[in-house]
Amino acid sequence: MPPIRVTVWSENAHENPEVRAIYPEGIAACIAHGLTPESGFSTRTATLDDPEHGLSEEQLAATDVLIWWGHRHHHEVADAVVERVQRHVWDGMGLLALHSAHFSKIFTRLMGTRCSLSWRAVGERERLWIVDPAHPITTGLPPFFELPHEEMYGEPFAIPEPGQLLLLSWFQGGEVFRSGCTWSRGSGKVFYFRPGHETNPTYHNPHVKRVIANAARWLARPNGRAAIPSGNIPVDKAPEKIEKT
Amino acid sequence: MPPIRVTVWSENAHENPEVRAIYPEGIAACIAHGLTPESGFSTRTATLDDPEHGLSEEQLAATDVLIWWGHRHHHEVADAVVERVQRHVWDGMGLLALHSAHFSKIFTRLMGTRCSLSWRAVGERERLWIVDPAHPITTGLPPFFELPHEEMYGEPFAIPEPGQLLLLSWFQGGEVFRSGCTWSRGSGKVFYFRPGHETNPTYHNPHVKRVIANAARWLARPNGRAAIPSGNIPVDKAPEKIEKT
Amino acid sequence: MPPIRVTVWSENAHENPEVRAIYPEGIAACIAHGLTPESGFSTRTATLDDPEHGLSEEQLAATDVLIWWGHRHHHEVADAVVERVQRHVWDGMGLLALHSAHFSKIFTRLMGTRCSLSWRAVGERERLWIVDPAHPITTGLPPFFELPHEEMYGEPFAIPEPGQLLLLSWFQGGEVFRSGCTWSRGSGKVFYFRPGHETNPTYHNPHVKRVIANAARWLARPNGRAAIPSGNIPVDKAPEKIEKT
Amino acid sequence: MPPIRVTVWSENAHENPEVRAIYPEGIAACIAHGLTPESGFSTRTATLDDPEHGLSEEQLAATDVLIWWGHRHHHEVADAVVERVQRHVWDGMGLLALHSAHFSKIFTRLMGTRCSLSWRAVGERERLWIVDPAHPITTGLPPFFELPHEEMYGEPFAIPEPGQLLLLSWFQGGEVFRSGCTWSRGSGKVFYFRPGHETNPTYHNPHVKRVIANAARWLARPNGRAAIPSGNIPVDKAPEKIEKT
Repeated sequence: MPPIRVTVWSENAHENPEVRAIYPEGIAACIAHGLTPESGFSTRTATLDDPEHGLSEEQLAATDVLIWWGHRHHHEVADAVVERVQRHVWDGMGLLALHSAHFSKIFTRLMGTRCSLSWRAVGERERLWIVDPAHPITTGLPPFFELPHEEMYGEPFAIPEPGQLLLLSWFQGGEVFRSGCTWSRGSGKVFYFRPGHETNPTYHNPHVKRVIANAARWLARPNGRAAIPSGNIPVDKAPEKIEKT
Repeated sequence: MPPIRVTVWSENAHENPEVRAIYPEGIAACIAHGLTPESGFSTRTATLDDPEHGLSEEQLAATDVLIWWGHRHHHEVADAVVERVQRHVWDGMGLLALHSAHFSKIFTRLMGTRCSLSWRAVGERERLWIVDPAHPITTGLPPFFELPHEEMYGEPFAIPEPGQLLLLSWFQGGEVFRSGCTWSRGSGKVFYFRPGHETNPTYHNPHVKRVIANAARWLARPNGRAAIPSGNIPVDKAPEKIEKT
Repeated sequence: MPPIRVTVWSENAHENPEVRAIYPEGIAACIAHGLTPESGFSTRTATLDDPEHGLSEEQLAATDVLIWWGHRHHHEVADAVVERVQRHVWDGMGLLALHSAHFSKIFTRLMGTRCSLSWRAVGERERLWIVDPAHPITTGLPPFFELPHEEMYGEPFAIPEPGQLLLLSWFQGGEVFRSGCTWSRGSGKVFYFRPGHETNPTYHNPHVKRVIANAARWLARPNGRAAIPSGNIPVDKAPEKIEKT
Repeated sequence: MPPIRVTVWSENAHENPEVRAIYPEGIAACIAHGLTPESGFSTRTATLDDPEHGLSEEQLAATDVLIWWGHRHHHEVADAVVERVQRHVWDGMGLLALHSAHFSKIFTRLMGTRCSLSWRAVGERERLWIVDPAHPITTGLPPFFELPHEEMYGEPFAIPEPGQLLLLSWFQGGEVFRSGCTWSRGSGKVFYFRPGHETNPTYHNPHVKRVIANAARWLARPNGRAAIPSGNIPVDKAPEKIEKT
C-alpha cells in the first residue's frame, strides 16, 4: 500500500516567542511528526510565505489529505489558491481543518455558513467526550480525554448540520462545543477538529495526535481522485429511446 | 398574521420570443401570481437589470423568502449582492432556488459544492415522486405528478447530503434526480426545486405552483431575522468561575 | 384554528412522597398545565393504571401529540399498546420523549438502538446551550439556561444520528449530553428532551415549559394523520406502459 | 490482515423450481461465492431451517458482517434470534439487508419505521444510478448499470432519512426508488441494497456482486466489536468535583 500523502499547512505562528517555545519547529512540523512513515504516512509542510502558499497545482495533485491550521492571517491567503484547494477537495482530496481554521477561507467556503462561535482565551480546562466510539476517527481513544489549558470555543457553532458528530467538548468556564464533525463535499471528505490554540502545547498531546492520525487515514481516498461526472447527454446517448409525445 | 413577504428574482429570460409566448410577463411575474394575498403572501419581483439587481439592503430586509430563477447570466450577478443575500439567508431569510439556479452564485456558495449535474434539453416527460408525503412542502400533492415536457437533470447532483429529500424525478430518457431538497444554513432555510426550463410552461402547472407556495410558507421564519450569537466571552462573564490550575 | 390535542402520559411517580411534594398532582398534570388553551392546546393526562394505559385506539386517534414520561415501570407497558402508539406515530402523531423515557419501549422501538447513556443522580448543576437558535423548538429561549439540581446524563447516548441537534447540556460533574434531538419516523416527528428527574422541580422551570410547548406545537401535523401510501401497482396501473424485452 | 468473516443468511427460496433453475445451490451460496478468499473474505451460509437459524451466539460472535435475504418467511424467524442479531449489530457487526429484507424483523427493528413501499413483480427493466461515486460502496462502478428484468420497488420507502444515499433506481414502468442507503446503529453499520427478486438472476450480475463485496468490506469493523459504554458514574468518579450549591 503506498503511503498516504499529507500536506500540513500553517501560518508561521511561531514567529511569536511564546509559540516558538512550545513548537520550536512550528505547528505544522509538530503535526507532521505525528504522522510517521511506520503508520503509513508521508508528509510535507507548507506555509503562507511559500510560493503559491506551497499549494500549487502540482503540490495539491500529490496530496491525499490537507491539514490546515490558520488564525490571524486568513485574509492573506490568495483567493486563487483557495479556489484551487476547493476544487481538489471536490475531486477527492481530504481536508482536516484545525481549531481557528473554522474562520479560514477554505473552510467557510466548503461549509457555506458563517462558521462563527463564541470564544475565551484564558487557558481553561477542556474535556473532550467521544460521542461515537465506533468511528475510525475515534478508534483507540478512551471515553474522554482532557487538555489542561485551552482556548474555549462555545456554541452556537454556525455550521451546517454535520454528517457525523464524533466529539463534544466540556469547558471549565461552563460552555460546550461540537469539537469533531464530518461532512462530505463532492468526492472529498472534511473533518473539523477543535483543539489547538497556539500558546498551549495541544499538538503534543497523545490523544490529539491520535485523532489527527486517525482522521488523516479516514480522509484519504484509497483510489485517488474521482471527479463527479457531469455534462450534456445528447438525445441519442440517452439510456432510453425518447419518443415524442 | 402579517403576510409572508416574497421577492421573486429572475433574469429577463422572456427577452427570448419562445419564452415570452409562455410567460408574457416574465417567469418571475408568473411565479409571483401563484402566491396570492388570500394565501397569506405579499410579493414583488426583481431582476438583474434593476439597481443592485433589486436586492438592496432595504429590499432584502423586507423579504422573508427569496425565490431565485437564473440560467444564462449567473456570472453577471455582482459579488457584493451575492454576499449580501448570503448574509440575509444566514440571518433567517429563506431561499428557494429553482431549476438552473443550481449553478447560481448564491446557491453554490451556500452549498459549498460544485452543484454540477448531467442534462438534456429535448422536452421529455418528467414524473416527480413524493418521497416524504408528510412534509409541509409536499402537503396536498398526489403520490406523483407529471410534466409532459421538461429539460432532464440527471444524477450525480454534486450537492451536500440534503437535510431532507422530498421529491425524486423519473425521466423518459432513463435518468433520475433528487428534485426537492432542504438544507439549513445559519438561521435560514434553503429549498432546491428542480423543474422550470424556460421554454416549457412548467410554472403554470398547478402541482408546481403548490410546491412553490408550500415551500415559500415553510421557508419563512415566523419571528423574522434571528442572527446566531457569537463573540468573545470575557473571563468574568463565564457562566462558571474559572479557577487557575 | 382548532387546538392541538396533547396527551401527557406518565407513570404515577408521585406515589413517592418526595415527588409528591414537588408535583402534588403528578408530573403529567404539571406538564399539561403549561400547555394552555390560550396558547392553542387542549390537553388530557393518561397513566399506566388507566385501562389500556389511557392509550386506546380512540384516545390515540384524538391525540395530535403524545408526551411520554416514564422511569421505573417501562416493562409494565403492554406491548400491544406500544405497537399501537408506534403505528400512530408512523401515521403522523408527534411524540415528545422526556428524560428517562430514553429507555421506554416506545422510544427505543422508534430509534432502533439501545438508547443507553451514563448517569449520576446527585442533583448537580445542568446548563443547556442552544445549538440552533433559529429552530421553532428553541424560539424565545436565551443562549443558555440553567437547572440548579438535576440528574446527569452523559455521552455516548446510543441513538441514531439526530435529524437536528438543538440543545447540548453541560454538567457540573464534567459530562456533556445531546439534550434536544429531532427525528422523523414515517409521517410522525419525534423529539427527545433530556431534563426531568422526578425529585427535582424541573417541569416548573419556565424555560423547560417553553421548550415543551414549542415542541408540542412543532410535533403536531396541521392536517392530521397522513399514512404513507404503499401496495402493489399492477402492470396496467403502471405510470408507463411496460413493453416486454 | 485477517479475512472479513461474512455470514450469508437466506430462506430456502430455491425450494421453488423456478428459483432453483437460477440458483441451483441457493441464493445464499451464490452471494457467498462472490466474496472470495482472494478478496479478503471468509464466508459461511445459514438458513431458517438451521438450529437457531444458524445464528447462535457463537456463530454471530464469529461474524463481522451478516448479509440477509428473506421474503416469504419473515414471521418464522424467532424473536429471540432477532434480538440477538440486533444486539450484535449494536456492538459492531455490520448488516447488509437485501431486497425483500426490507420487511424482515431485523431490518424493521433497526429502522424503527414501517419500511413499506410499492411494488410490481413483472420483470421490468431497472437502471441503478450512482448518486455518490466517491463512496467505498460504489467504487469501481460505472455511472449506472442495468438489470433487464427485476421486481419494481417504488417510493415512498418508509425508512428513516439515510445517513448517506448512494444509489437511485429508475424503473421501466415509471417509478423511482432509493436503492442503496446507509445508517449507523450503535457501533454497527447497516446498508440496504434493493435488487434481488428470486426469479431473476440478479445476484449473478457483476455490478451487483461488486456492490455486495464493496458493502461487506465497508460494513466490517477492522477492530472487531466495540460496545458503547454506559452505566452509573458515582459522584466520587465524576471527572469534576461536585460542590453542593
